[in-house]
Amino acid sequence: MAKITGVKCIRTRHDGSWTIVKVTTDQDGLYGIGSATDMFNPEAVVQVVEQLFAPLLIGREAGQIEDIWQMMHTSGYWRHGSITQTAIGGIDMALWDIKGKEANLPVYQLLGGACRSAVPCYGHADGRDQEELTEAVHRYIEEGYTVIRCQLGSYGGGGFVPAVKANVPVPSWSANVFNEAIYMNAIPAMFEKLRVTFGNDIQFTHDVHSHLQPIAAVQLAKRLDPYQLFFLEDILPPEQIGWFRQLRQQSSTPQAVGELFTSPHEWTDLITERLIDFIRVRVSKGGGISACRKLAALGETFGVRTAWQEGGENDPVNQAAAVHLDRAVWNFGIQEINHFREAECEAFPGHVERRGGYLYLSEKPGLGIDIDEEKAALLVDDGWSRSAYHIPYKLDRRPDGTLVRP
Amino acid sequence: MAKITGVKCIRTRHDGSWTIVKVTTDQDGLYGIGSATDMFNPEAVVQVVEQLFAPLLIGREAGQIEDIWQMMHTSGYWRHGSITQTAIGGIDMALWDIKGKEANLPVYQLLGGACRSAVPCYGHADGRDQEELTEAVHRYIEEGYTVIRCQLGSYGGGGFVPAVKANVPVPSWSANVFNEAIYMNAIPAMFEKLRVTFGNDIQFTHDVHSHLQPIAAVQLAKRLDPYQLFFLEDILPPEQIGWFRQLRQQSSTPQAVGELFTSPHEWTDLITERLIDFIRVRVSKGGGISACRKLAALGETFGVRTAWQEGGENDPVNQAAAVHLDRAVWNFGIQEINHFREAECEAFPGHVERRGGYLYLSEKPGLGIDIDEEKAALLVDDGWSRSAYHIPYKLDRRPDGTLVRP
Amino acid sequence: MAKITGVKCIRTRHDGSWTIVKVTTDQDGLYGIGSATDMFNPEAVVQVVEQLFAPLLIGREAGQIEDIWQMMHTSGYWRHGSITQTAIGGIDMALWDIKGKEANLPVYQLLGGACRSAVPCYGHADGRDQEELTEAVHRYIEEGYTVIRCQLGSYGGGGFVPAVKANVPVPSWSANVFNEAIYMNAIPAMFEKLRVTFGNDIQFTHDVHSHLQPIAAVQLAKRLDPYQLFFLEDILPPEQIGWFRQLRQQSSTPQAVGELFTSPHEWTDLITERLIDFIRVRVSKGGGISACRKLAALGETFGVRTAWQEGGENDPVNQAAAVHLDRAVWNFGIQEINHFREAECEAFPGHVERRGGYLYLSEKPGLGIDIDEEKAALLVDDGWSRSAYHIPYKLDRRPDGTLVRP
Amino acid sequence: MAKITGVKCIRTRHDGSWTIVKVTTDQDGLYGIGSATDMFNPEAVVQVVEQLFAPLLIGREAGQIEDIWQMMHTSGYWRHGSITQTAIGGIDMALWDIKGKEANLPVYQLLGGACRSAVPCYGHADGRDQEELTEAVHRYIEEGYTVIRCQLGSYGGGGFVPAVKANVPVPSWSANVFNEAIYMNAIPAMFEKLRVTFGNDIQFTHDVHSHLQPIAAVQLAKRLDPYQLFFLEDILPPEQIGWFRQLRQQSSTPQAVGELFTSPHEWTDLITERLIDFIRVRVSKGGGISACRKLAALGETFGVRTAWQEGGENDPVNQAAAVHLDRAVWNFGIQEINHFREAECEAFPGHVERRGGYLYLSEKPGLGIDIDEEKAALLVDDGWSRSAYHIPYKLDRRPDGTLVRP
Repeated sequence: MAKITGVKCIRTRHDGSWTIVKVTTDQDGLYGIGSATDMFNPEAVVQVVEQLFAPLLIGREAGQIEDIWQMMHTSGYWRHGSITQTAIGGIDMALWDIKGKEANLPVYQLLGGACRSAVPCYGHADGRDQEELTEAVHRYIEEGYTVIRCQLGSYGGGGFVPAVKANVPVPSWSANVFNEAIYMNAIPAMFEKLRVTFGNDIQFTHDVHSHLQPIAAVQLAKRLDPYQLFFLEDILPPEQIGWFRQLRQQSSTPQAVGELFTSPHEWTDLITERLIDFIRVRVSKGGGISACRKLAALGETFGVRTAWQEGGENDPVNQAAAVHLDRAVWNFGIQEINHFREAECEAFPGHVERRGGYLYLSEKPGLGIDIDEEKAALLVDDGWSRSAYHIPYKLDRRPDGTLVRP
Repeated sequence: MAKITGVKCIRTRHDGSWTIVKVTTDQDGLYGIGSATDMFNPEAVVQVVEQLFAPLLIGREAGQIEDIWQMMHTSGYWRHGSITQTAIGGIDMALWDIKGKEANLPVYQLLGGACRSAVPCYGHADGRDQEELTEAVHRYIEEGYTVIRCQLGSYGGGGFVPAVKANVPVPSWSANVFNEAIYMNAIPAMFEKLRVTFGNDIQFTHDVHSHLQPIAAVQLAKRLDPYQLFFLEDILPPEQIGWFRQLRQQSSTPQAVGELFTSPHEWTDLITERLIDFIRVRVSKGGGISACRKLAALGETFGVRTAWQEGGENDPVNQAAAVHLDRAVWNFGIQEINHFREAECEAFPGHVERRGGYLYLSEKPGLGIDIDEEKAALLVDDGWSRSAYHIPYKLDRRPDGTLVRP
Repeated sequence: MAKITGVKCIRTRHDGSWTIVKVTTDQDGLYGIGSATDMFNPEAVVQVVEQLFAPLLIGREAGQIEDIWQMMHTSGYWRHGSITQTAIGGIDMALWDIKGKEANLPVYQLLGGACRSAVPCYGHADGRDQEELTEAVHRYIEEGYTVIRCQLGSYGGGGFVPAVKANVPVPSWSANVFNEAIYMNAIPAMFEKLRVTFGNDIQFTHDVHSHLQPIAAVQLAKRLDPYQLFFLEDILPPEQIGWFRQLRQQSSTPQAVGELFTSPHEWTDLITERLIDFIRVRVSKGGGISACRKLAALGETFGVRTAWQEGGENDPVNQAAAVHLDRAVWNFGIQEINHFREAECEAFPGHVERRGGYLYLSEKPGLGIDIDEEKAALLVDDGWSRSAYHIPYKLDRRPDGTLVRP
Repeated sequence: MAKITGVKCIRTRHDGSWTIVKVTTDQDGLYGIGSATDMFNPEAVVQVVEQLFAPLLIGREAGQIEDIWQMMHTSGYWRHGSITQTAIGGIDMALWDIKGKEANLPVYQLLGGACRSAVPCYGHADGRDQEELTEAVHRYIEEGYTVIRCQLGSYGGGGFVPAVKANVPVPSWSANVFNEAIYMNAIPAMFEKLRVTFGNDIQFTHDVHSHLQPIAAVQLAKRLDPYQLFFLEDILPPEQIGWFRQLRQQSSTPQAVGELFTSPHEWTDLITERLIDFIRVRVSKGGGISACRKLAALGETFGVRTAWQEGGENDPVNQAAAVHLDRAVWNFGIQEINHFREAECEAFPGHVERRGGYLYLSEKPGLGIDIDEEKAALLVDDGWSRSAYHIPYKLDRRPDGTLVRP
């Protein structure tokens, strides 16, 4: 069996925010890759992979994935932080990639084989106003999508005003003011118009991005019941998931959560009490393929489907891992999509392809995706500043200046 | 450190209903003030402060607030009565005032610093009929308020008839007849008209004042769901808070309670079971800043916000204590306002100021408010009779003469 | 029907700590008395009776006890504090005294008549060491008692050391150090010896006085299971009664609590969840005969018995009210006793008499007890200082100086 | 108010495992320090402090601790990981240090003042056999400790055998074999002997270090009931804390957990359901003083005490923060101790001092501890290899080779 000889991280993308783990072995040309991307703390993840885990991995048999996972899980003593989980997830994916290559089979075959021919995905339609949104929805329908996420007024979905325009005592260091009262009216109105325009057969979702006070979340879910959403996403922040018990007594709008989860303490009760319908953990943040396979199994027992988080800052390797799970897991629900530039795709030969609302794997052994390290290096340029991205994102505040938990 | 040398009460306002605690120390000019106002039992509170607690406090270090709080909490043997809690609350505020002055910092700085630029508050609009109410709401909107409490037909909110006019067997010593059936129709109708007039972006609350039978409370909360209240206040009396479990299964109207609470036995389950959205304990009745800070922390964990009770009989010192908490507590919700006469404000230099729907502290050290004892003495006149105020208030009865619990 | 013409308080006993309410009527010589004793806040109770309630009562029919009770319950706006409850309790007893006199029947007859011929009570045996305790128990057995409360090392029961002797950093202003570890060993050892000495047929109780940490309370109850106590008293402070759920999963030692209760929020769950066996609210603190009669009815439904608190600071009028309930309530359990001096008994003609472990009422109409105001006045002397009594009591601390909740 | 001008990390100790955060301000000489030590991922923590948080902090008012805490809490998007929490905790402590210096008061004074004269702590007695352990316990008793943690057979507590000696199929890369069956007998036997030797008045604890299968944890707690432990530590791993419900139905042995916690999802239910008695989160891992103050308040409501984790890899600054909380929090339980070398103490002037089983603060403003950066730099030497420490520790396995979760 192949023994691990090296574990390193490759930073790529224009801002360096993609972190790809590469695990090499003593078998000629046999290596695996995984995703350890965390755009907020990229260097910290690299440290955990290369300083904490690499010394523990080198010399171990690459095929002992489960034992290595358990060892990594406890080797930082404290568990489940997003930084450590991402490092574990990236290594775990690379080990599955190696195992698939050793077996000369795509990873989904090792996971039990395909349950479906292709993987349906949902698009993200956005608009500064209803007109722009309607146009975006039309485009997705034309492309063949049957499920479309609808957001209004930049990403968040109505109720957001640039701080400089807000006539309220919000601090000067803030970028956006979030007005819950306006948002609560804007979203039902948005869906009312969408249903009038598109009828009831097209399926919609909406992402709340955890901005609501808990009781407003209950109210919104209830008020959206008539619009038959495919699901409502992240209606409650991780701190307040206990409120799902109350929400479920009053609303039957399907609930998708987990984008911010990294720990079973967050998802176990939600699933065993049947409080959610879709689990949206990112595969790397959930601890990789090994951990997400078990999470999906838990969901099957309780009628909860998978909707692994993608989009935004994710890289093509994490996407590939998600889609392998999507093909093999019976209680798969839907897959979020990514938008990569052509140069980005070229740096990742064998990447997932999207055709008409469905995603397709390369069918090569392992994850079926590789990294062209030379092209990946060319993606990085210096024009990027991390704070430029996330400070406006982070500092949404209420009109009185109170920070909103995203 | 400063040692306590004296603890006394100052009675003021036209009816003597404001009780201000003053704690003096052995440091030159260093003292603190707090609010121990209880308009129903002012003399009793004074007795507890001066007879029970003062001898236990004199000689102690003023800075040992927590130990002193715990000592007072058990020094009357029985706990949590409104009279004892008010006394404790008043002394606790005075000790935080002293600590702030010793630190040369406003109290909110000691509590962790400001979480918001200013403190939004809600106004109280009242009208004998819808027309008067509409006018009152307009005035508040013009002043800059975004949340307005709406009551109809004197304070109570519709359904109240002077006893002398009621053609029912109510006893002669009663003042008002409360007709639950009429009230149950009047309030949804009031909000229907308010929404037609003012649209959905302005936020409304309503105070039920605990007059309903429990199942009527469930019904009303449910019937008000479509009107998207900011909150519904005191829908159940303290004796029947167990009914919130049932109410929450059927209504998502936000619930604000606690104006009548003095004990953790009343609020703990409501918060940990997420049965309410706003805790409305008065800061003095809750046991002062020390206790309310902990109560707010409990609320933060469970997504419950603060809305400390003010208005009516409260004094400027209690208001200042509330607004210090409002600035420092992340899970602050909103603040009720007070209306003070100019002479009253002059007797309390450094009082909280209100501008355009927001409240502002003086930013001086400690609570930032002082009492001008000479001016305070002038506020008191003899023209007042307590019974004249609260007997008509207390004796609401149903048409058959049954006493209503307020 | 008699109308109320006056409500006043009479302070008596050597320290003035007994407060007797006297309600007079417009019927010649018809008046009632009740107990409103609160030794920690006597003046405050007088204020509530005479300033808050008296103006509301004068002119009302004395016979409308229930309506008056409900009116008083809400007339201080906030409910259930020990000071207000005591005032209500005292007035309520006086109204029942009047009603009994109007009916020319003892109060227990109005409550449904006697369920038992006499009222069994339990004695309080104390000793500085096991030898003294054994002697005290012998004396009670000789007197005819079958249930005896056993305490070791002054009242608290072992584990208490005068602060001046403790070699620990307890503050200088403390009187006693409570060492939980020593106490936890001392009490089981005490009962082991008592069972060896007295066998299993005599019944023992013990009063923990709320000094234990919650888990230590669970442990102690469990460790005392083999000694078959009649009950264990106040094993948890009012703040921690939620722990009875856990205690009851592990121990079958009967539990008696309520000496510190004043509110249904404290006792309702304990009774409906069958977590306690004896309710020990003081009749005045529980709100008088009207309220305690209902509390006893709740207990009957759930198999919980009464053991109204007496002893210590209680007066003969409260004792009489308790014993009337004891005779009439089917689910009566046992009655704590009082020790009055002869002069004290003389000031209260018709007081309860104790013979051979049983208590007997005077069988006169009403409560059957009167106050001789002249003799009562003579009881008061000036030699008393409140702080001298309760400061050593209040300030028990743990060895590190932390205040213990009594 | 002081504005933040810089945020940096100082690595110290012989192995560089101590990470001290230093926050500087625009006020001359005004800075604060905090602990961000994580010996498993030191570089990752530094990245989070300096790359993620520093740019968000510079220019902000240092006094707005609560708002800054909330901002940091969500600025890595995912919450509560040990690496991020440690970074937050270190910065939070430094901000409280600054606030204390601005106020010219020790931090515990800002938290409400002292609740106790000194802070009792527990020692850690270890022995290869019972004889060595007995000697170690004797030494602690002589030093004045009243609570002592007892472990047998190196740290773990019996049942551990070096892998090289184990005649079982454990993998060659493991260091220790953990035999649960042997351990389950060894520990009750250890306490049986300790009680025979030392009697019942000295208090013992034991640390299970999460090695047991859940049902074995229930069994052990139950079998230790007769030995009256002060507490049993980490009897269940973070993944299995749901088992505390079952454990508490059968055992009254006090439970202390939290050393491995970083998130409210881990502790909230344990506290509100009263399943544990001591919360043992490390102050930095819990999110610093701001978060642990709230956690302590939650504990007070439910009768759960604090026992902040110290020892092992902790640094003197985290210890100082813990002891400030210990002095001010009423429901403090006990404090674990640290052993620092003299040179280490010299690098941290104003460090906590231990005398006779009690800990004492320096009483200087702020945290009262400083870092001498020159001396701190000298502590670091190059002889250290991280893997040398924690690889043998991590890789405990059962006799069949299964990894044990620590």
